[in-house]
Amino acid sequence: MTINTNTRAVEAQIDARIEARLEYWIEQLGRLCAQPSISAQRLGIDDCAALVATMLREEGYVAEVLPTGGSPIVYGDSGPREGAPTLLFYNHYDVQPPEPLELWNSPPFTLTRAGDHLYARGVSDDKGQLITRMAAAAAVRDVLGELPCRVKFFVEGEEEIGSPNIPPAIDAHKERFAADGCIWEFGSVDYTSRPTQTLGMRGLAYFELSAQTASQDCHSGLGGSLIANAAWRLVWALSTIKGVDERIRIPGFYDKAKPATARDLAYLAELPDQSEAFKASYGVAGFLKGMTSGTELRRAAVFEPTATINGLTSGYQGPGAKTVLPARASAKLDFRLVPDQSPEEIGPLLRAHLDAEGFPDVEVRYLAGVKPARTDPDHPFVQLSIHAAEDVYGKPASVEPLIGGSGPLHPFIHVLGLPVVTSGCGYPESRVHAPNENIRIPDFINGIRHSARILYRFASM
Amino acid sequence: MTINTNTRAVEAQIDARIEARLEYWIEQLGRLCAQPSISAQRLGIDDCAALVATMLREEGYVAEVLPTGGSPIVYGDSGPREGAPTLLFYNHYDVQPPEPLELWNSPPFTLTRAGDHLYARGVSDDKGQLITRMAAAAAVRDVLGELPCRVKFFVEGEEEIGSPNIPPAIDAHKERFAADGCIWEFGSVDYTSRPTQTLGMRGLAYFELSAQTASQDCHSGLGGSLIANAAWRLVWALSTIKGVDERIRIPGFYDKAKPATARDLAYLAELPDQSEAFKASYGVAGFLKGMTSGTELRRAAVFEPTATINGLTSGYQGPGAKTVLPARASAKLDFRLVPDQSPEEIGPLLRAHLDAEGFPDVEVRYLAGVKPARTDPDHPFVQLSIHAAEDVYGKPASVEPLIGGSGPLHPFIHVLGLPVVTSGCGYPESRVHAPNENIRIPDFINGIRHSARILYRFASM
Repeated sequence: MTINTNTRAVEAQIDARIEARLEYWIEQLGRLCAQPSISAQRLGIDDCAALVATMLREEGYVAEVLPTGGSPIVYGDSGPREGAPTLLFYNHYDVQPPEPLELWNSPPFTLTRAGDHLYARGVSDDKGQLITRMAAAAAVRDVLGELPCRVKFFVEGEEEIGSPNIPPAIDAHKERFAADGCIWEFGSVDYTSRPTQTLGMRGLAYFELSAQTASQDCHSGLGGSLIANAAWRLVWALSTIKGVDERIRIPGFYDKAKPATARDLAYLAELPDQSEAFKASYGVAGFLKGMTSGTELRRAAVFEPTATINGLTSGYQGPGAKTVLPARASAKLDFRLVPDQSPEEIGPLLRAHLDAEGFPDVEVRYLAGVKPARTDPDHPFVQLSIHAAEDVYGKPASVEPLIGGSGPLHPFIHVLGLPVVTSGCGYPESRVHAPNENIRIPDFINGIRHSARILYRFASM
Repeated sequence: MTINTNTRAVEAQIDARIEARLEYWIEQLGRLCAQPSISAQRLGIDDCAALVATMLREEGYVAEVLPTGGSPIVYGDSGPREGAPTLLFYNHYDVQPPEPLELWNSPPFTLTRAGDHLYARGVSDDKGQLITRMAAAAAVRDVLGELPCRVKFFVEGEEEIGSPNIPPAIDAHKERFAADGCIWEFGSVDYTSRPTQTLGMRGLAYFELSAQTASQDCHSGLGGSLIANAAWRLVWALSTIKGVDERIRIPGFYDKAKPATARDLAYLAELPDQSEAFKASYGVAGFLKGMTSGTELRRAAVFEPTATINGLTSGYQGPGAKTVLPARASAKLDFRLVPDQSPEEIGPLLRAHLDAEGFPDVEVRYLAGVKPARTDPDHPFVQLSIHAAEDVYGKPASVEPLIGGSGPLHPFIHVLGLPVVTSGCGYPESRVHAPNENIRIPDFINGIRHSARILYRFASM
C-alpha cells in the first residue's frame, strides 16, 4: 500500500489533534473506570451500559442499550455515509472482579496516574481500548469536519464470562451490525515494543465431569473393598481422555482440526522468541514433548487443540489423614479448539468416548464454549492494519495467525463476514485480570493513532 | 470350658453387685464425659489424663501419667497377685471433635439420659467402654474381697489420630506392660443383639501424593500446549496404582498378604447377612466386582487389601468455568493392609512403582500407618471370652476373624505377645464419631458383666 503525501499530511494533523485532546480522553477513561461493571457478579452492569451509551451520544452517535439474556449490548452508530464502507468496533464494558483487593496499590475503581502509568480495573481490559476507539474517531472527525465512513460500536457486557449471548444476538441482528471491517477489542505491543497483529483465536469447550457412587461418604476401612469410589471412577475416566504423550484419545476429536499452513508457519517464524521469558515466568525447566523454542514451539502453542484439567475436587482435602471413601468427585476440563473444530461437537464425542471406555456413570456437563475463528491474512484490511501499525510504531508488526486464547470472534468473521484486526494500548505488563491493572500513556497515544489511521485509510479503501 | 456350680454362684453375686452399683458408674461416666479430650485439637488432653489417673487411684490402682511425644498414656496397676495371671485393659480417653454442634440434641460434653439411652461425645468411644472395665473389676473385687488377678490399665490419648506414639512406647516398656491377656477398647452387639467378638484389624498406610509442575498457575489458553499440568500428572500417576478391576498394580504389593484360612471362612459363614442394610445405608445398587452377599462378600470386605483415594484437590473448584492450568495437585490415598503386610514396606513399593511408570515427579509423603494384626482364634483366652459372652447375652457371639478398620493392635499382639479379645457396651446405632453419640443402659450393664466374667474366669485359667 502506497501512502501519498496528502494522506501523510492529514495523518500528521490527526496525530496533533490526538495529542491536543489527550487529557480529555484520560478524563473520559477515568469516568468509565469509576463505574464498576463486574459481569461475574452482575455488579454495576446496567449503570455501566447506560454510561457507555451516554458517552457515545456525547460523541454524536445514535446509541441504544440492547437487551440480551444477560448483560445488555451497547450499540452506537454514526449513521450512513454515502459511498463509504462501515467500520465496526467490538469492545466490552465489563471487567474482571478486582479481588484480591489487598494487592492493589491504589483503589481499583479510581483511575490513578503515576508517572507514565494509569492504573485501574479495566484500564487495559477493555475500557482503555474502548476509549482509544472513541478518541481515534473523534480526532479523525475533528480534522476532516466529519467522519469519513460509517462507524459502529458493538460494546458487550459479558466478555469476561464467555460472551454467551453474543452469537445469538448477532444471528438475530445481522443487518443492524453489518459492516466491512472490524477492529477487535484488544491490541498491544510486545516486550520488544513491536505492535502485535492478531488474526485468530482458538475456540473453547468447557466441561464439568462428575461421578457420584453413593448417597454418602463411607469409612474407607468399611467400604474400601465393597463399594465404588467416586474419586477412582473420575481418575480412571480422565486418564482415558489424554495420554501421557499429550495425545487426546477421544475418537474423532482431531478430525476437523486444520494444520497450520505454510503462510502461518512463515508468520510464526518471524515472531520474537519469548520461550526463555515464559519458562522463567512459570518456573519450568522445559516444555512438553521436549520442545525447546522456535517455530515448532510457536506452532504447537496455538495450532494444536488441548485438553486441560482446570480443577479436581473430591473427599477430604485438609491437612493430615482422614480415612474417607468419597461418594462424589468432579473435575473441570477445558478443550482449546482450532479451526474448524466446534464446541458443539466435542460434547457428544466425549460422551461417546466415556461410554465406550466403560464410564457411562461419569456425568458430563457442558459449561461454556466458543468456536475458533481466523481472519484471512491476505485480506486488504489486514494488510492495511499491519502497514498502519508500522507507520505508527516505527517497527514492523508481529503477526500472530492464531493465538491460544478464545473469544467470540467466530460470529463476527463467519456470520457478519468481517475481516477482523487488532489495535490497542496494552503491553506485556498490563496485569490484565490481576491487581494493579495498568497501561502506559505512550501506548495509549499510539493505540489511538493506530486506530485513527486504520479508520482514515479504510474510508477510502 | 465347663463352668462349675460355684463359679455360677459367684458370677450371680457379681451381677447383683453390678446392678447395685449401676447409678454410681453412670455418675462416673458422666464425670469422665464432662471433661473434653479432643486429641485432634489437643484440647483438654492433659486434664483428662489427670482425671483418669485420679479415677483409677480412687479404685485402688497405682496410677501414673506417662509422657509420650504426644498425649500421655495413663497407666494403672493393681499390683502383683501371687500365682495369678495379669489382665491388661487397652482403652483411650481421647475423643473425636463434637462438630457439627448444631446436629446434637444435647450438649456433647454433658452426659444426658433419655429413657434407656445415654448421650455424650465419647460415651461409647471410648469412655463408656473404659468405665465398663473399671466397673467390672470393682464388682469382682467387691464380691471376692480382692482382685483375683493383677489388673493393668493402658489408657492412651491419641487413638483418634492414629496412635502414633503407642508402638514406640510399648517397645520401650515391654516389662511394665507385660500381661497374659488383653481386653481391647471396643465391643458391641449387632443388629440381632448378638455379641460380637473381634479378633483382628487390618493395617493402614496413608499417603499424600502431589505433583507440582510450575511455580504458578497458567492460563489454559496460553500454557495448555506448552507446559505440564499438575492435575494431569496426578491423574495419570493415580490411574497406574489400581485398575478398574480393583486390582492394585504396585509390584510386590500382595506378596505378604495372607489369604483367609478355612477356619476364617467358617467364622465368616456364620456372621449375619448385613448386605442389604449396607446397600440401603449408602444408596448403592450393588457391590464391587458383582459380589452380592454371603461369605465371599464378607471375605472380600476384610481379607483383601485396598487402595482408596480419600481426596483430590487441584486448581479451580468453584462454580462455573475458570480456564486455569494448575501448577499443583494432590491426592490422599490410603491402603488397608492384611496380615502380614506392613505400612513401612508399602511406601518404598509405591515409590518404585511410580518411578517405573514414569512418574518420578509425583511426590509421595507418608502421613500415617499401623500394622495389621490378628489374635489366634484357638487361644484359650479367646474361647473364654466367646463363652462368657454367650453366658451374658444368651446368644452365641459373632466371631469376626478380621475387621476392615485399623488400630494399634499389632504391638499388643506381637510385642507384648498378648491374646486380645473384645468386650463392651456399643451397638450399631451408637453414632461413634458423629453427633448424638450414645449407648443403651442394658448394653452398658451387659458390657460390665461380660468384662467381669472374663476377669473372674481368666484369674483361674
